This record gives sequence, C-alpha cells and structure tokens, in this order.
Amino acid sequence: MDALIKAFASLPGLGPRSARRVALQLLTNKDKMLRPLLDALATAQDKIVDCNECGNLDAVDPCRICQNPKRSSATFCIIEDVADLWAIERTSAFQGQYHILGGVLSALDGIGPDDLSIPKLMGRLHEHQPQEIILALSATVDGQTTAHFITDKIRDAGLDANITRLAHGVPVGGELDYLDDSTITTALKSRSTVS
Amino acid sequence: MDALIKAFASLPGLGPRSARRVALQLLTNKDKMLRPLLDALATAQDKIVDCNECGNLDAVDPCRICQNPKRSSATFCIIEDVADLWAIERTSAFQGQYHILGGVLSALDGIGPDDLSIPKLMGRLHEHQPQEIILALSATVDGQTTAHFITDKIRDAGLDANITRLAHGVPVGGELDYLDDSTITTALKSRSTVS
Repeated sequence: MDALIKAFASLPGLGPRSARRVALQLLTNKDKMLRPLLDALATAQDKIVDCNECGNLDAVDPCRICQNPKRSSATFCIIEDVADLWAIERTSAFQGQYHILGGVLSALDGIGPDDLSIPKLMGRLHEHQPQEIILALSATVDGQTTAHFITDKIRDAGLDANITRLAHGVPVGGELDYLDDSTITTALKSRSTVS
Repeated sequence: MDALIKAFASLPGLGPRSARRVALQLLTNKDKMLRPLLDALATAQDKIVDCNECGNLDAVDPCRICQNPKRSSATFCIIEDVADLWAIERTSAFQGQYHILGGVLSALDGIGPDDLSIPKLMGRLHEHQPQEIILALSATVDGQTTAHFITDKIRDAGLDANITRLAHGVPVGGELDYLDDSTITTALKSRSTVS
C-alpha cells in the first residue's frame, strides 16, 4: 500500500495526500478502476516504443508521423520533447517531419550536446536535405541557446536549408497589461503591416 | 466603519475579508498609514487630470508624454487604457505619441464607437499626419474587432499612414507545451528566418 502511494506521489501534479486518495479510490473499485489502469499500463509498457527516426512515442517504429507518406520531408520541425510534438499536432498547422531533441542544452542541469539527439538530427538532415528547418524551441534562455547551437551546427555542416524560428509576440487572447516587458518590446519591434 | 470596509471591498483584488483587514490596519496605525493614504488620495483627486490630447493620467495637461519635445509625432500608438500605456512605457521601446481609446468595442457590453475616443483620435491623426499608426490592442476578439474598425476609419479618411499591429506569437520565456493552439498556429505561420 505504501509503495503504491509513493509511486503515485512521485507523478507530476500529485502530492502525498492526493496520491493517498487515488490509491484508496482504485482499491475500493478494483474491477472498474484498478483493472483497466493495470491493463493499460501493462499494454503501454509492452507496446509503446520510441520512434528511431524522430523520437516520438508510438506503438510502431518508425512512428505513424514518420511513416505517413502525405507528410513532406522538405520541412523539419525541431522540438524539445514529445509534449511539444503533441502541442503542434493538435493545431494541424504543420505537415512536415519532426525531430525531438529530448531536452535543451543547460549549463545549470549539466545537459550538453551529447545528451541530446543532435548527431541523429544531423544524420537525418543530411539524408533528407530539407528546404526549411523550423527551430520550434521554447522562448527561454536555454531554448534559445540550443537554437543558436543547432543553427551553427547546420551552417557548419554546409546544409543548404532556410532556418526559421517561431514568431515571438503577444499570445492570441493576450492582454497587454498582463504581459512582461520583453514580450511587449519584441511584439513592438517585430510589428507587421495590417493587410 | 462599514462604509470604509465597503469602499475597500469594491476595489479590484480585495474581497470583504481583506477589506476588513486593511481597514483595521489603517485605523490602528492612523499616523503611519491612514494619514499618508488620505493625503495621497486628496492630492490625487485635486491634481491628477486626464490629458486632453492622448487620454493619459498626469498632473499636467497635456501630459508629460504629449509635451515631451523628444518624442516624435511621426508614430502614433493606439491603446486601450492607461494600464497599457504604462506597460509600453516600462519597456522604453517606443518613443512616439500615444492615443488611449478608453476601451474596446464590445457588442456584449454595449460599447459602441461613440463610447470610445475615436473622433478625438481622427482629429489628432489629421492634425499630425503620422507616417505609422501602431494598433497595440489586445489579441482578443473585441480588441481585433476594434483594430479592424479603426483601420477602416483611417483608410476611409484618406490618411496616408502605414498601419501596423503588434507581432503575435510565443511570449518571451514561454514554453510550447503550455500555449494554446491558436498561438502555436500563429507562431508557426508567421515564423521568421534566423539571421
């Protein structure tokens, strides 16, 4: 029982109290809740694998995105993790290939280029020779350091691709008064003509 | 006492409980807290006025921004309220003139063009003939409706100015996973080449 509560408490968003509540709920509804969860976890452990191409999680390897013949390999979108892939896929605004780095460079956390999937990325870029490489990394210091590092890598490798980054500015639905100074400055600097 | 608590409770961010706490704190520290607050409020009531040009709040009319000879009148920045003016001034990224609308068009709240400072704006634009008009309105539905309305007004008036809007995209420091779908879509669509 203690081990179960500890296991739940280690999950993001759950503390010791909510872990206890979850465990109790599961154990009092064994058939309806514990069994399906157990089955789902067991299936996930057996079936879900890392895609050897992009790093996505899927039941097949290469994943369904890499296998999809309708997706162009002329555009590569470089992202930090699987959550970002899901976030972009939800929008249906991108129809190219992904590459998951598995994190960002971070001097503080001791994450160097060798800890990320950068050699694999360079291999894929050489193989597919995309026309555009979108650096869809977080607008944080570490994210932008990583973007610079990868840009240099791509330039040094002599790849002939247009390197782009996501637009920075006011988020949709955002009100000026609640935004930080750097976002307002960026939004002002990269203002666009109303068509 | 009740009137004081009610007056505090009507302020944004204060509920009945915190209003009671504030009132008690003030009354038990009359010299140190109540007197300065009273003086500041009385001075504010006497001295702070609306700027007849841009709509800013200041002790002088026209306000110090409108009076400042170093600020160019070649660029006009149209904003919703004084809070937005302060937000942009904090960044020091803008050195032109402001115009505060006093809100945005809203069918739901019954706010029409006559409730905003639009006639005054048109008069100032005719007078100063700016080269650029920045529509720094919120990225909300109402904000964008207002932006469209003003754009049409300016075009109809035959003013020869470049109309721009703030860039939309990922806020600085923002992580993809936490952003809504429309912001990600916009950020992808208006991506820019890495220099």
